[in-house]
Amino acid sequence: MTLSKIAELLNTEFNAQEREISGMNALKDATPSEVSFVANSKYIKDIEETKAAAVIVPASLVEHVPENCVALVVENSYWSMAILSKYFAPVIEDDTLPHAEIGEGSRVSPKAEIANGAKIGKNCTILAHVYIGAEAVVGDNTIIYPNVTIYRDCKVGSDCIIHSNSAIGADGFGFATNNLGEHKKIYQNGNVVIEDDVEIGSNVSVDRAVFGTTLIKRGVRIDNLVQIGHNCEIGEYSVFVAQSGCAGSTKLGRNVVVGGQSAFAGHLTIAPFSTFAARSGITNDIKESGKTYGGFPLLEQRTWLKLQVKIARLLK
Amino acid sequence: MTLSKIAELLNTEFNAQEREISGMNALKDATPSEVSFVANSKYIKDIEETKAAAVIVPASLVEHVPENCVALVVENSYWSMAILSKYFAPVIEDDTLPHAEIGEGSRVSPKAEIANGAKIGKNCTILAHVYIGAEAVVGDNTIIYPNVTIYRDCKVGSDCIIHSNSAIGADGFGFATNNLGEHKKIYQNGNVVIEDDVEIGSNVSVDRAVFGTTLIKRGVRIDNLVQIGHNCEIGEYSVFVAQSGCAGSTKLGRNVVVGGQSAFAGHLTIAPFSTFAARSGITNDIKESGKTYGGFPLLEQRTWLKLQVKIARLLK
Amino acid sequence: MTLSKIAELLNTEFNAQEREISGMNALKDATPSEVSFVANSKYIKDIEETKAAAVIVPASLVEHVPENCVALVVENSYWSMAILSKYFAPVIEDDTLPHAEIGEGSRVSPKAEIANGAKIGKNCTILAHVYIGAEAVVGDNTIIYPNVTIYRDCKVGSDCIIHSNSAIGADGFGFATNNLGEHKKIYQNGNVVIEDDVEIGSNVSVDRAVFGTTLIKRGVRIDNLVQIGHNCEIGEYSVFVAQSGCAGSTKLGRNVVVGGQSAFAGHLTIAPFSTFAARSGITNDIKESGKTYGGFPLLEQRTWLKLQVKIARLLK
Repeated sequence: MTLSKIAELLNTEFNAQEREISGMNALKDATPSEVSFVANSKYIKDIEETKAAAVIVPASLVEHVPENCVALVVENSYWSMAILSKYFAPVIEDDTLPHAEIGEGSRVSPKAEIANGAKIGKNCTILAHVYIGAEAVVGDNTIIYPNVTIYRDCKVGSDCIIHSNSAIGADGFGFATNNLGEHKKIYQNGNVVIEDDVEIGSNVSVDRAVFGTTLIKRGVRIDNLVQIGHNCEIGEYSVFVAQSGCAGSTKLGRNVVVGGQSAFAGHLTIAPFSTFAARSGITNDIKESGKTYGGFPLLEQRTWLKLQVKIARLLK
Repeated sequence: MTLSKIAELLNTEFNAQEREISGMNALKDATPSEVSFVANSKYIKDIEETKAAAVIVPASLVEHVPENCVALVVENSYWSMAILSKYFAPVIEDDTLPHAEIGEGSRVSPKAEIANGAKIGKNCTILAHVYIGAEAVVGDNTIIYPNVTIYRDCKVGSDCIIHSNSAIGADGFGFATNNLGEHKKIYQNGNVVIEDDVEIGSNVSVDRAVFGTTLIKRGVRIDNLVQIGHNCEIGEYSVFVAQSGCAGSTKLGRNVVVGGQSAFAGHLTIAPFSTFAARSGITNDIKESGKTYGGFPLLEQRTWLKLQVKIARLLK
Repeated sequence: MTLSKIAELLNTEFNAQEREISGMNALKDATPSEVSFVANSKYIKDIEETKAAAVIVPASLVEHVPENCVALVVENSYWSMAILSKYFAPVIEDDTLPHAEIGEGSRVSPKAEIANGAKIGKNCTILAHVYIGAEAVVGDNTIIYPNVTIYRDCKVGSDCIIHSNSAIGADGFGFATNNLGEHKKIYQNGNVVIEDDVEIGSNVSVDRAVFGTTLIKRGVRIDNLVQIGHNCEIGEYSVFVAQSGCAGSTKLGRNVVVGGQSAFAGHLTIAPFSTFAARSGITNDIKESGKTYGGFPLLEQRTWLKLQVKIARLLK
C-alpha cells in the first residue's frame, strides 16, 4: 500500500515523497518500509530514533518525528492505527496457496483441517478436529490432540505436545477506544512461535502478537487453562501451573516457575529462575534471579508468610 | 402441556380450571400461559404480583398466591421446578427443521456443522469444526474461528468475532438439591444474545439463561478464558480482561472495565463506567458510576492501595 | 517388558532374577508384576511395604528396599521414572482395535470421531466434533456436546452431560527436572473415571492420572473453566463453581461445595460437607466435616469476615 493511500485512509494531509509500505510495526522495530505509531509522550525517545517510513502521531508529538520519517498527524493516533491495522491483516484462509505439505510418517486425521499453505513435519500425530491455519508450520514428532486450533502463520516446533481445546494464535486483546467509549479492533498481524520440546495443556490460550511474535521458548511446560497474552516471551524451561496468566508484552527469563492462579501484569521483565507461589500477583519487574515470591501485592514468599501471621494477630 | 399434566408430574393436587401451558418463567416475567415457582419468602411481593398461570409453591407461601393463579403446592418447590424444567427443554437437534440458511457471500467450511433451523447472514466466515445449533442465528460479516460452539437458539450479531474453543450458550449452572444432598438439573431453556460488534476471545464460556436471555450488548470486548454466567447482562462497550468472571444474573452498565482474574458475585447491579483493577472481587452493587475499585473485599482502588501500605507496616 | 530390559533403558546394573513387567505404579499400589519408584525419604515406609517387582531408587534409599523387590539404583530416580514411563504409554490410536460399538438408540454425529475400541452405550447423544478415544467407554443416556474430547481409556458414566470444549483425560502435569533445569515428561498412563449423573460445564479440564484413576464420583456438578488435576478424587454430589481448581491427588469427601475461583493445593484430604466461599485457597487438610471456610490463607468464613473488619480499621 502506498503512503499516500494510507494518509487518505486516515484522513490526514500528505505532502511527502511517495513510498510503498509493506506493513506496520512498533517504533523500535519498524523498518524503512513500515509505518509505526505513537500515542504517548513516554515514547519520545523511541520516536526520535525510529527508522519507520512514517509514524502516526498526534500534533503534540509531531516535533519529535525525525527528518527522514513522514509524520501522519491525526487526533487519536491509537484509533487511527487501529483503522490502518485492518488493511494489513492477511486473509484468514487463502485458496491460492498450495495444498498443505505433510511430512513422511505423519498421521493426520481425515477429520482434521490443514489449511492451504501449512506445513507439517515428519512423524507427527494430528488428531481429529484439529485446525492448522494458512502458512502455519509444525515441526517433527509433534502430537496435537483433538480440537486444538493453530491459527495462521503460527509455528510449533518439534517434539511438542499440545492438548485438546487449546488455541494457539488467537488475536491478542487489542483495541482503541474513542471519547464516546466505542472500541475499534487493532488487528493482530503478528504470530506465535513455540520452540521445540514444549508441552501445552488443555484449554490454554496463547495469543498472537500485534506485531512480531509471542514466543514460547524451548522446554516450556504450560498446564491447563493458562492465558499467555500477545507479545509475551516465555523463557526456556519455564513452568506455568493451571489457571495462571501473563498479560501482554511481559518477558520471563528461563526456568521461571509460576504457581496456580498466579498472574503477571503486562510489560514486565522477570529474572530467570524466579519462583512464584500459587496466586502470586506480579505487577513489577523482578531484577534479581533465583528468589521465591508470593502474595498480592507481591512479597518474598517468606515475608508474605510472616505477614500472614501478623495479620492473623489482629483477631486477638 | 396442560396444567393438570404438570400437577400430575409434580405429584400434587389440582382442582382448578384446565389451561394449556407454553413454558416456565420467573415470577416477574411469566405470562398467563406460563408456570413459575417460588422457593424463598424473599420473593413474596413477586408472588403477589405475578401474572403466571400457576406457581409451584411450598405450603408456607401458598397464601400469597393471587386469586387468578393456580398454586401447585409441593414440599421442595425448587426441586419440583427442576423436575418440570426437563419437560420444557427443546430437543438438541431437530431433523424436522428446514436446512440451515446461509447468506450470500458467506464462507462456511464443509467441516463446520450448521444444524437444521440455523440461519447465517451475509459475508460471514465460519471455519472448520464450528458448531452452530438448531435455530441459532448469526448476523452479517461475522467471523467464527475453529472449534467454537454456538448452542441452539442463541443469537450472534453482525460484525462479531468469536475466537477458537469458546462455548456460547452451554447450560447455566443450575440444579436443585434435596435433603439427601442429591442434585437435580434445572434445564436451562433460555438463550444467549450477542449484539453487534462484539469480540469474544478463545476458551470463553457464556452460559445460556435459565429463562429469558443472557445478554452481551453492542461493542463488548471479552478476552480469553472468561466466564459469563446465566442471565447476566453486559452493558455496551464493557471490557472483560482474561480469566475474569461474572456469576449469574449480574447486570453491568455500559463501559464497565473488568481487570484480569476479577469476578462478580451473582445478582448484582453495577453502575456504568465503573473500572475494576485486576483481581477485584465484587460482592455488592455499585451505585455510583465512574469510579475505580480494587481488592477483595472490594474498596476504591486508591483506598485499597493505602490499605496495602498500612498492612505492610505490620511487619515492622 | 523384561526387568533386564528396563535396567538397560535406565543404564543401571541388574543381577536379579528375570521377570516380565506389565506396567508402572505407585509404591502402595504396585503389584508383583509392576515397577515403582521413590525419590524422597518421606516415603520410606511405603518402600518397605511395597509389593512391586522392582523399585527405581537413589543409592541413599536402597537399604529400605525389601528383599523380594529388585532395587534399580539410579542417580535421579524421578528422571529415570520419566524415561521409563514413555515405554509403557499406549499408542494414542490403535487401528488393530475393533470398530467402536454404538448402543441402540444412540445418535452419533457423522462429524464426531469415535476411535477404534471405544464403546458408547444406549440412547446417547454425541454431537459434531466430539472425539472419543481408543477403548474409552460412555454409559447410557449421556449427552456430549460439540468439541468435547474424551481421551483414550477414559470412562464416562450414564446420565451424564458434558458441555462443549471440555477435555477429559488430557495428560496430568507431570515431569522430572534435572540439574540443568531441563524437563522430561512423565507419561500419564492412568485414566479418568466419571461416574453416573455427573454434569461438567464448558472449557473444563479433567486430567488423567499418572497411574490409576482420576475419579469424579456420582452426582458431581462442575461449572465452566474448572481444573481437576491428575489423581484427584471428587466425592459424590460435590460442586465446583466456575474457574475453581484442584491440584493433583487431592481427595474431596461427598457434598463439598467449592466457590468460584477457589483452589486446592495438591495431596490434601477434605472432609465431606465442607463449603468453601469464592476465592478460598485451601492448602491444608480439612478434618472436621460440615464447616464453611474462606480466604487465603484459609480461615473459617465467619473468622475471615471478622478479620476483614479488623484489617479495614488499619485505615483509621
